[in-house]
Amino acid sequence: MEHKYILVLGAGRSSASLIRYLLQHADENNWTLTVGDISEAIARERIADFKTGRTVEFNMEDRERSRKAIAASDVVVSLLPAHLHLMAAAICLEEKKHLLTASYVSDQMKALDTEAKSKDLLFLNECGLDPGIDHMSAMQLIDKIKAEGGRLTSFESFTGGLIAPETDPENPWRYKFTWNPRNVVMAGQGTARFLQDGQYKFIPYQQLFKRTTSVVVPGYGEYEGYANRDSLKYLETYNLHRIKTMLRGTLRNKGYCSTWNILVQLGCCDDTYPMENVGLMSHRNFINSFLNFHPSMTVEEKLCSAFNLTEQSEEMARLRWSGFFSNELIGLEKGTPAQLLEHILSKKWKLKQGEKDLIVMWHRFRFEKNGMQREIQAHLTATGDDEINTAMAKTVGLPLAIATKLLLQGKILSRGVIIPVIKEIYDPVLLELTKLGISLVERETNV
Amino acid sequence: MEHKYILVLGAGRSSASLIRYLLQHADENNWTLTVGDISEAIARERIADFKTGRTVEFNMEDRERSRKAIAASDVVVSLLPAHLHLMAAAICLEEKKHLLTASYVSDQMKALDTEAKSKDLLFLNECGLDPGIDHMSAMQLIDKIKAEGGRLTSFESFTGGLIAPETDPENPWRYKFTWNPRNVVMAGQGTARFLQDGQYKFIPYQQLFKRTTSVVVPGYGEYEGYANRDSLKYLETYNLHRIKTMLRGTLRNKGYCSTWNILVQLGCCDDTYPMENVGLMSHRNFINSFLNFHPSMTVEEKLCSAFNLTEQSEEMARLRWSGFFSNELIGLEKGTPAQLLEHILSKKWKLKQGEKDLIVMWHRFRFEKNGMQREIQAHLTATGDDEINTAMAKTVGLPLAIATKLLLQGKILSRGVIIPVIKEIYDPVLLELTKLGISLVERETNV
Repeated sequence: MEHKYILVLGAGRSSASLIRYLLQHADENNWTLTVGDISEAIARERIADFKTGRTVEFNMEDRERSRKAIAASDVVVSLLPAHLHLMAAAICLEEKKHLLTASYVSDQMKALDTEAKSKDLLFLNECGLDPGIDHMSAMQLIDKIKAEGGRLTSFESFTGGLIAPETDPENPWRYKFTWNPRNVVMAGQGTARFLQDGQYKFIPYQQLFKRTTSVVVPGYGEYEGYANRDSLKYLETYNLHRIKTMLRGTLRNKGYCSTWNILVQLGCCDDTYPMENVGLMSHRNFINSFLNFHPSMTVEEKLCSAFNLTEQSEEMARLRWSGFFSNELIGLEKGTPAQLLEHILSKKWKLKQGEKDLIVMWHRFRFEKNGMQREIQAHLTATGDDEINTAMAKTVGLPLAIATKLLLQGKILSRGVIIPVIKEIYDPVLLELTKLGISLVERETNV
Repeated sequence: MEHKYILVLGAGRSSASLIRYLLQHADENNWTLTVGDISEAIARERIADFKTGRTVEFNMEDRERSRKAIAASDVVVSLLPAHLHLMAAAICLEEKKHLLTASYVSDQMKALDTEAKSKDLLFLNECGLDPGIDHMSAMQLIDKIKAEGGRLTSFESFTGGLIAPETDPENPWRYKFTWNPRNVVMAGQGTARFLQDGQYKFIPYQQLFKRTTSVVVPGYGEYEGYANRDSLKYLETYNLHRIKTMLRGTLRNKGYCSTWNILVQLGCCDDTYPMENVGLMSHRNFINSFLNFHPSMTVEEKLCSAFNLTEQSEEMARLRWSGFFSNELIGLEKGTPAQLLEHILSKKWKLKQGEKDLIVMWHRFRFEKNGMQREIQAHLTATGDDEINTAMAKTVGLPLAIATKLLLQGKILSRGVIIPVIKEIYDPVLLELTKLGISLVERETNV
């Protein structure tokens, strides 16, 4: 068996499970794994328990060292921030290396398809959780429904990265950062587009967290979902051009959205301008900047008045818990509202030692078969082991890790810039995820 | 007296008064006026009554012809869309010609200051109504208050381009397009920043049309104002660094903002994505795209429910009057929400023959003088003659025309990229505007 070299780029938040899986399978497959990060110390932490892992200081801006690290590998798995994938891809093309990511395919990445194919390279993207497991589990079911003669009329899908109910029961948001905090703060900016009962529907940011959908997951209870930015592109991705409803969204625990909506309405998530006098700004000043001037009302009174809330409301309880009314200094010298908000939220929304996160994914398919209206609901949940080996790290990292293994074992023959909506990939990846305890529970009923 | 050549670029909506003024003063001053427009026919219409005017087909994209036209002039007055001023400015620098515009100074324009000065050229910008007369009238009063020993504590200023009360009394918006319709549709996007009683305040787009300020103009009644995007930069422009309140905004008739807010909240003003199936879309379909799917409710019912309105509300009356519930096709093949909205509104918001517009400008200065708290309120109103010689065309065009005359008569000696906040310009321009019937009414009181 030929020796193979794997280079994992990025040793951050969601890399733990990916790196562990690859290291666990390194000896039997004759692999050497190298983890590259801008901080080699962090990379070293990730491989601590394994003697076979190597590390390298990796900075995409340093082109010569980046090229050297990539040239020395057979396959590159990038967990870098999405905007850096393209630089990695350019080097991978020149050095003829495969590339796997968990990020959305950009137009520029898509444009590399022909060249990647002609060089017999796989550039597999969107192979994490969402996008990733959502694609794979949806396509497996869609293909099965079609193969059995069903005609799909509706597909709805929601995924959320939450915290486990046993974690932090006093946290009234029932949410902490388990993913890029900036993406959480910026979530939903732009307009959500989807198809509902044959009508194109558009929800702008200012309505998004008000127009939520209730989602009940058996054994887990009721969640609320808000629509993702562009569900319409999945008509193409999943080849569902004649479908009447196509809606994808994000799940949160009940109450999150009505409180987040207040921050949205105030303008706290705006990333387009720097605020004034940030160095002297307290959490309380921050909120007050977005409220009417009123000489005799407190910040809390103005907020309640603006949003028709009582001081005892759940929304006020969540904002209070997050410290928004505190006189504590934010602790930054400058920043946009979004940057300051992220900083304030980070103080309370960090997983503490031993705390567990929870991933919830839910699909609903409606279809006609033999003249009957049928429905399949499917859901997946995953709980983190602790604050490092989170459910997020597992569900983002393991699909990537498994796909890397399959590729190196010669079991993925597809080439070019693709996403895992093809049977050759989704079947074996989902099968192995099931063995690792990550699988969907399905239930089919008449409507 | 040396013969001088003036080139006016752009013969659109707000050029009528500018061109007429310059033609009326051409003979006595020994000027030749040339009007350039992408459509020479429109340019010819503007000079119809005068034998001394010339026209030229002018397309900024055609560099050689543009250069030729500019080279043949002594001063260029540009009413082109703002993004074209910079190209005109580049040629003016090379050909050593003065340039006057009514547009905001961009950073790129500002960067030409040194070169313009070194070539003894005046690049006068923001010399229309708003920006323009607002600057001049505010600075004249600010300088006067300071000269008399007053210390300014507060400056608020609102301007609006409305329709005259006698025009279109059945139009419940009491508004029509008298200015670039696209700017009206996009108005307020971004976050409004201002200073109020020593506190920096920020109003995001989604709150802007809810958080209006009441403005009473003597003899004209009560208006509502919404905050402009960046009032803070005027601390610098007006040299008012120690002031406690600095707020600039836009005036509308009462009720406009609560109805416009519905369009904002729905997402109708979004210019970031193309809608689907536009060719088959009616006005009613357009609104429905932004409302919840509900099989048994009408568009009107859904809208009332979403915004807590009754069918008899003023907001619904305005939307109905504008045809938003009509089954009429929009009549475009493609477009963003903002483009479709502009097209729908244009059907009803055009000044008809003989209809008159109304400009309202209002300033309030608060200051301490001799231990007393004093206040000056000043307002200016102007009514259009008809749908061509609008108040907008007069108040935008005449300041530019007067400044052009003063420059050619050697009465403006300032050079470089400037705006009319200097006495040398604002005093004579305001004086002549007063003679033309455009002047502010002031009233000073104790607070």
